[in-house]
Amino acid sequence: MNYNYNPQLSAQPFRTGELSLSHGRVKTPCFMPVGTLASVKALSPQDIAETGTDIILANAYHLYLRPGHELIRRLGGLHNFMKWNKPILTDSGGFQVYSLSKLRQITEDGVRFQSHIDGSCHNFTPEKVIEIQEALGSDIMMCLDWCAGYPADKKEIELSVKITAQWAKRSIEAKKRGDLRLFGIIQGGMFKELREQSAYELLDLPFDGYAIGGLSVGEPQELMLKVLEEVIPLIPERYPRYLMGVGRPEDIVEAVSMGIDMFDCVIPTRNARNGMAFTRYGHINVKKSSYKYTEEPIDDKCSCYTCRHFSLSYIRHLYRSRELLSYRLLTIHNIHYYQELMANMRMAIASGTFWDFKRNFYKLYSYK
Amino acid sequence: MNYNYNPQLSAQPFRTGELSLSHGRVKTPCFMPVGTLASVKALSPQDIAETGTDIILANAYHLYLRPGHELIRRLGGLHNFMKWNKPILTDSGGFQVYSLSKLRQITEDGVRFQSHIDGSCHNFTPEKVIEIQEALGSDIMMCLDWCAGYPADKKEIELSVKITAQWAKRSIEAKKRGDLRLFGIIQGGMFKELREQSAYELLDLPFDGYAIGGLSVGEPQELMLKVLEEVIPLIPERYPRYLMGVGRPEDIVEAVSMGIDMFDCVIPTRNARNGMAFTRYGHINVKKSSYKYTEEPIDDKCSCYTCRHFSLSYIRHLYRSRELLSYRLLTIHNIHYYQELMANMRMAIASGTFWDFKRNFYKLYSYK
Repeated sequence: MNYNYNPQLSAQPFRTGELSLSHGRVKTPCFMPVGTLASVKALSPQDIAETGTDIILANAYHLYLRPGHELIRRLGGLHNFMKWNKPILTDSGGFQVYSLSKLRQITEDGVRFQSHIDGSCHNFTPEKVIEIQEALGSDIMMCLDWCAGYPADKKEIELSVKITAQWAKRSIEAKKRGDLRLFGIIQGGMFKELREQSAYELLDLPFDGYAIGGLSVGEPQELMLKVLEEVIPLIPERYPRYLMGVGRPEDIVEAVSMGIDMFDCVIPTRNARNGMAFTRYGHINVKKSSYKYTEEPIDDKCSCYTCRHFSLSYIRHLYRSRELLSYRLLTIHNIHYYQELMANMRMAIASGTFWDFKRNFYKLYSYK
Repeated sequence: MNYNYNPQLSAQPFRTGELSLSHGRVKTPCFMPVGTLASVKALSPQDIAETGTDIILANAYHLYLRPGHELIRRLGGLHNFMKWNKPILTDSGGFQVYSLSKLRQITEDGVRFQSHIDGSCHNFTPEKVIEIQEALGSDIMMCLDWCAGYPADKKEIELSVKITAQWAKRSIEAKKRGDLRLFGIIQGGMFKELREQSAYELLDLPFDGYAIGGLSVGEPQELMLKVLEEVIPLIPERYPRYLMGVGRPEDIVEAVSMGIDMFDCVIPTRNARNGMAFTRYGHINVKKSSYKYTEEPIDDKCSCYTCRHFSLSYIRHLYRSRELLSYRLLTIHNIHYYQELMANMRMAIASGTFWDFKRNFYKLYSYK
C-alpha cells in the first residue's frame, strides 16, 4: 500500500500522512466510526460524509451472521450494499468471537463459536475470514487473531501470540484480491516480551500495516500507554499503525502523541444513544435539567448539522421523549467532534504545533 | 384567511387551491405528516421538506404535557424550537383526551384528565387550549372539541355536539393573535341530523376553515364516506375543509373526490416503523424473505432519497437488524409517497383529468 507520512524532523514519534486505498485517500491520524451491520447506527451515508469521515469500520463477524457475506457479494459488495463509496476497514471477528459469542473453542485450525443471535455453530479459520472480507470488498482487511482479554495469565497470552502468528501467515497465503490491503494484529497482552515476540513474528510477513490488538479490553489508561510505548517503536515508520478499539478523546490524543495513525471506537456513536455529547470542555449529559431552557447548541463553536440548527433545550426534549431524531442528531455531533479533533491534530502536526495543541486540549477538556 | 380555490366548471365537488398562512403557502388538497412531539418521528426538518411536505401537524395535548407550551414560548415558538419554518397546524387535544388519557371528566366548562405519562391531573378549557396554541404559534389552531368515539349512543353525541358548539364560541372569543388561523370542528357522529346541527352551529361563527371530526375512529370506510357525503355540502365552498385523522391512500383519494382539502394521519409514519412501505401497487412488508436479494428499490419509479439510493435487500437487512436508519428511510419513502399522491391529485384536478387519475390509481393499487 502507498502510505505517505511525514517523518518529524524533530524526531517526535507522532506524524501525519495519507493512506491510498482502493476507494480513496485517508488522511492520518484518522478516526473510523463503527458501522457494525453495514450502517453507522442512526446515520445515512450522507450524514457520515458530512461529519468529515473518510473511512468507516464494519464487522466481518456481524455481517457474516447477518445478512451473510454471500448476500453482500451478490449485491455488489459492502460499498454498494450500504451506498458508502469511501474506504471501509473490516474487523476480522477475532474480537467479537472473544467478546460476544456464547461458546468458543480455539484450536490451531481456527475458532468454533456459537452465534450471539441464534446460538447456531460456526467455524472461523484465517482462510474463511479472508474469504468473507474479500466478498465484502473491504479496502483494509484484518487477519483473524486471538484476543485474549484482560486480565489473562501469561500461558494464555503466550498461546494467543503463537496462534495469532500462525493465522497471520495463513491469512497472507489465503489472500487473493490485489486491490485490497491486509493488516496484521500484534497481540501479547500486557507482557513486554510477548508483545515483542508478536511484533517480530508479524513483521516478518508482508502486511500493509500493523494493528495493536488486545488493548482497550478493560485495562487502565496508564497500562495501555505503557504497552504502546513498548510496541510502537517496534513497528517501522513506513507502516500505518492502528490502535484497535480506542477510545476516548484523551486516549486518542495520547496515542497520536506516541505515533498511532488509525483508531476506531463505538464511544462517539454508542454514547450518543445514551444522551452523551462531547464538547471542547468534556462530555455533557443532555438529559440534565439545567439544559431545560438552553437556547444555545451543544457547543457554540461546533459547525456540525446539529449545532448549526438545534438548541440544547430541543435536543434534551427529543432525548427525554425518546424521539429517534435525538439519536441521529447526537451521533452526528459526536462523530463530527471526533473528526474535528483528528483534523486539528493533523494540522498541528503538519505545522509543528502539536505540543501547543495538546496543552490547549487539556486546558479545556476535563474528563471523568 | 386567504383561501384561493378553483371552483370546478363541471360542478364536481373536488377542487384544488392554496392556503396563505403566516409561514407560507400550502397547495390543497394537502397531507400533513404528524409531528406529535415537535418531531416527525425519525426525520429532521430537512428530511421533511425533501419529501415535498409544506405543512405538518403537531399535537397541543402532547406538547402541553412535554416539554410544556411555556417552554416552547420561551424558546421562540414551535417553529423556532423544532427549526421547521413552514406552516404548522396543531390539534387541540380533544382527540387525545378521548383516546389517550386515563380518566377524563367532561363538563360544560371543559375537560379534566389525567396525563398518559405520569397520571398527573390537568384541565383543558377552550380558552386554555387557545392559549397553548398561541404560545406554540401554530399557523392553524383547532378548537377544543368533544370527540365521542365510535360506536356511541345518540344521547352522548347530542351532548358532544352541544358542548362542541359552546366551546367553539368561547374559542373564538379567547383568540388574541391575528396572525394565526382558527378552525372549528364539526362533530355529530354517524347521525345525519346531528352533523347538520353541528355544521350550522359552527358555520354561524367566523372560523377560517372547518374540520370534520369524529371520523376515522374505527368505523368502516363506507360509513365514513356516507357521513362525508352528508356533511361536505353543508360547508360553503370558500372554506378549506379538513378531514381529521384520515387516512389510508384509498381513503384520501375518495375524500378528495368529495371535496376535502386537508388531511393528517399517522399511517405513513407509524407503519414505516413497522416495516410497511407504500408503492403504486399497494403496500409491502419489507421483512418478507422474497426481498432478500432484491437489488431494486422499494419502488423503481419513486424519486425519494430512499429509493434513489438503497436496495430493498439493504432496507430489509436494516429493518431486520433493528437499525435506526431503517425507520428513517421508510418514513421518508412513505411520506414522499403520500405527498406525490397529493401532488398528482392536484395536477389531475387542475388539468381536468381527475377521474382518469382515480381510475388509474385503482387499476394499480390493491389494498387489504
